[in-house]
Amino acid sequence: MITFDTTPAAYQHWKLSFDGPVATLAMDVKEDGGLDPGYKLKLNSYDLGVDIELADAIQRIRFEHPEVHAVVITSFRERIFCAGANILMLRGSTHGSKVNFCKFTNETRLAIEDASAHSGITFLAAVNGTCAGGGYELALACDEIILVDDGNSSVALPEAPLLGVLPGTGGLTRVVDKRCVRRDLADFFSTLVEGIKGKRAVEWGLVDRVSPTSQFRDAVAKRARELAQESDRPATGPGITLNPLNPTVTDSAITYSAVTLALNRAKRTAELTVQAPTGPQPSTVEQIAKAGDQFWPLRAFRELDDALLRLRVNEPEIGTVIVRTEGDMQAVLALDATLVSLRENWLVREIVLMMKRTLKRMDLTSRTFFAFIEEGSAFAGSLFELALAADRSYMLHDDAEANVIALSAMNFGPLPMSNGLTRLETRFLGNAEKIEELRSHDGPINAGDAEELGLVTFAPDEIDWDDEVRIAIEARAAFSPDAMTGMEANLRFAGPETMETKIFGRLTAWQNWIFQRPNAVGEHGALKSYGEQGRPEFDWKRT
Amino acid sequence: MITFDTTPAAYQHWKLSFDGPVATLAMDVKEDGGLDPGYKLKLNSYDLGVDIELADAIQRIRFEHPEVHAVVITSFRERIFCAGANILMLRGSTHGSKVNFCKFTNETRLAIEDASAHSGITFLAAVNGTCAGGGYELALACDEIILVDDGNSSVALPEAPLLGVLPGTGGLTRVVDKRCVRRDLADFFSTLVEGIKGKRAVEWGLVDRVSPTSQFRDAVAKRARELAQESDRPATGPGITLNPLNPTVTDSAITYSAVTLALNRAKRTAELTVQAPTGPQPSTVEQIAKAGDQFWPLRAFRELDDALLRLRVNEPEIGTVIVRTEGDMQAVLALDATLVSLRENWLVREIVLMMKRTLKRMDLTSRTFFAFIEEGSAFAGSLFELALAADRSYMLHDDAEANVIALSAMNFGPLPMSNGLTRLETRFLGNAEKIEELRSHDGPINAGDAEELGLVTFAPDEIDWDDEVRIAIEARAAFSPDAMTGMEANLRFAGPETMETKIFGRLTAWQNWIFQRPNAVGEHGALKSYGEQGRPEFDWKRT
Repeated sequence: MITFDTTPAAYQHWKLSFDGPVATLAMDVKEDGGLDPGYKLKLNSYDLGVDIELADAIQRIRFEHPEVHAVVITSFRERIFCAGANILMLRGSTHGSKVNFCKFTNETRLAIEDASAHSGITFLAAVNGTCAGGGYELALACDEIILVDDGNSSVALPEAPLLGVLPGTGGLTRVVDKRCVRRDLADFFSTLVEGIKGKRAVEWGLVDRVSPTSQFRDAVAKRARELAQESDRPATGPGITLNPLNPTVTDSAITYSAVTLALNRAKRTAELTVQAPTGPQPSTVEQIAKAGDQFWPLRAFRELDDALLRLRVNEPEIGTVIVRTEGDMQAVLALDATLVSLRENWLVREIVLMMKRTLKRMDLTSRTFFAFIEEGSAFAGSLFELALAADRSYMLHDDAEANVIALSAMNFGPLPMSNGLTRLETRFLGNAEKIEELRSHDGPINAGDAEELGLVTFAPDEIDWDDEVRIAIEARAAFSPDAMTGMEANLRFAGPETMETKIFGRLTAWQNWIFQRPNAVGEHGALKSYGEQGRPEFDWKRT
Repeated sequence: MITFDTTPAAYQHWKLSFDGPVATLAMDVKEDGGLDPGYKLKLNSYDLGVDIELADAIQRIRFEHPEVHAVVITSFRERIFCAGANILMLRGSTHGSKVNFCKFTNETRLAIEDASAHSGITFLAAVNGTCAGGGYELALACDEIILVDDGNSSVALPEAPLLGVLPGTGGLTRVVDKRCVRRDLADFFSTLVEGIKGKRAVEWGLVDRVSPTSQFRDAVAKRARELAQESDRPATGPGITLNPLNPTVTDSAITYSAVTLALNRAKRTAELTVQAPTGPQPSTVEQIAKAGDQFWPLRAFRELDDALLRLRVNEPEIGTVIVRTEGDMQAVLALDATLVSLRENWLVREIVLMMKRTLKRMDLTSRTFFAFIEEGSAFAGSLFELALAADRSYMLHDDAEANVIALSAMNFGPLPMSNGLTRLETRFLGNAEKIEELRSHDGPINAGDAEELGLVTFAPDEIDWDDEVRIAIEARAAFSPDAMTGMEANLRFAGPETMETKIFGRLTAWQNWIFQRPNAVGEHGALKSYGEQGRPEFDWKRT
């Protein structure tokens, strides 16, 4: 079972150090530290375990070190920055593992860019040596790239020519869409095993600058200090500590403080339940800081994030997830109001951004989500986003009309999807008036009104409820898992595409296709035969 | 060998009729008229051959019938509109055939929408009976959909629940992005084999209106006449006739009047050469109309389009295409000036739109294109778009600097890619000043300047040329065809995504993935086992 909780003290592959406003995250992958003993992580190559530490480090810098304004991502090794994803690991992985690995590493790189765009943290890739494939893709996720000019070190995306697959972590997209490298130069570059170095790398826009070996360290330090000055983060701490989540894990459930994921493997379903907060809640920045990681929005969404990740990698056959909420809806709405009113504060900002990323993780999780809205639920404001993220929502239309949902300011901006729109805007695409109508709607909304407003999919009455939801779940669980994955990936993201959605839509979908193709993964495919005797054998038909 | 030239007199599957400003295109698929004898085209289901006729009909309406302002797409059969792509055909197809089939049908539907958006022709789907899968996707490509309300006829996308694949012709995308059907309703709808009929279909936005059987015919006629009134097309003809292209086809080349596609199967390469016009060219609307389909821009781009289509379906192993032009560059520039100055004329508008669609077809062709710009070439204006559409361009830097390219107004707007940007805008993404700089650049551009301006990829001198281009071709031809397809699909479309690019990016890439998956195409996959004894057997792992 793969878990995602870690701490810097437990890191095997990264060294995290601090120097005033600059943190340095240096890759130093332990060869024998792979998640699986079947491969060695040579040359700073990585597997999911290495990336779990990276994701943790980024998260901790955001929450635990508000005084950090710039992060240098570099390598602890001489002449090697990072060789990318470990090829032996990829070769030995199941299709699902490859896909989940790429999805998580993509999310981690997007979290870096999220911190750049919204948290006041600038990332500087200090490429001190060989930088290939996923190594260059990690650099691409940073705001700036400095490459050592040692006559040898290059940046490269050798996946297509060498392995017959695509750079799986946004490389092609970021080269042309983020760094605006000309498509023809990008084409040449992406077929060049040895990569591009020195002045040409700068001219083509592949890196921002080069620096001779003797000056590299100073140039990086100087630039990092400059970048740090642009931040609006606090000059000093303290931050808050992200303590381990410590869920109770049994064969049939993962139970956290506010989140439970109950598994029904026989039916290939799960129930994901989020508890609203209870008791008095912080309402000032000081109280929130004091509550730290026990502050409900942070606690609940961290737990939700962890549950989604475990579901993805450890429970591949669970195809349908019932989403429920329980508890005091008013408490959620009160916290939403607090978050919105205090969002200028760095910590509150981080908490809201973390909620946003978690909901995006849900959008990108290839499982069906059905939200069940019943009496006693708390689908209000930020928790109502769970229903909006779901593929469908069923709301019990009780005779007493006691079953209600509610909207808050959190539904109208702070939690956008990766397409840049809120879930309500995506839901009512091209209907701006509807959004205004909903924005002016205050107070609880009963099932009849929710259905009328288009906020829920179906609102069966008490007589129909049991049969209707049972049939919906059974029908869903019987469909081809692949067809559902493809269908959901297309229906969830109406509206504009962004660089982020392109990475998960266009790029990932093509990569997944290639990961199925004999030319890559067949007995004589390029990924399978790399490093072995003989050349790959291709079916030459173009598709 | 599959060919794409046809005429209404030869149609087996469509009846095209005219009534003043309204044309009616009625589907009446001949069961035994499939491209392959291995299946029967029952229930107005279709194969590539049916769609070749549809594409031809749309094209002819545009050029041959300027008096047509609205087109009704309906069925000649009672109670059956269209059952979609033929399942037995799909089941028996190779992966490449399925992919090419979907690509062509997508292009045909986008050509319908192109005519709606730019040609003043409105399309009305008169759904007079069962409308499933590709049938509904054809309706979705129309501006409006009227569904007969006979208590039985529905619209449906049953591919995912029934066959374990996606609707392959833009259905999912158009439902949420074009018709703005709510994503949760779309989710429900797309899992419903029986589809949705009557009032609910209207309420959900799946169709625009329903009409009882007794009034259906009149309602369609009335609405078509209304829609026809909105057109800016001429009130009367004549149009121009699109005569057969009649290329000379040998084992090693397809030779048209202005285009040659020479095949080198041993090297898996082809040379695609376009000849510039010679002699005096029309410069008025009257002269152009008189020249008809022999007017060079129309003739050359029709031939180019046909060559690309034949390459796709008949030469799957040709992975790399060298693109050349020959002739009088000034003649191309003069014609570009004529086209731009006369573009308000309906016929000139159609010619430019046809050029645009052909270049899009090239962008979407999964073969590597390298443009070779040598002395005597005519890469100017609209023909320079071929170099811009290519993955790379090599321009000989001759000592005499006689080898030149040139831009025209055609490079700055009339020929956008499917992402909505011109090829120059895509090439210089995020660099609007560059576009202005190029726009102000008049006259020929030699190789040194072209390289400096970023208009060509490489400009080897006479000493290096032969080796450099030879190595480039050989290297390219040795890479995994699948990796090149995925790489090119990601690098060619920098910048925004549109509904059109989403269909080819996100939707098609996922569909191609599913078309590889055992859950669809394996021995017990849903597509393979549909209609056979027993249910499909799925690997339940979600990816």
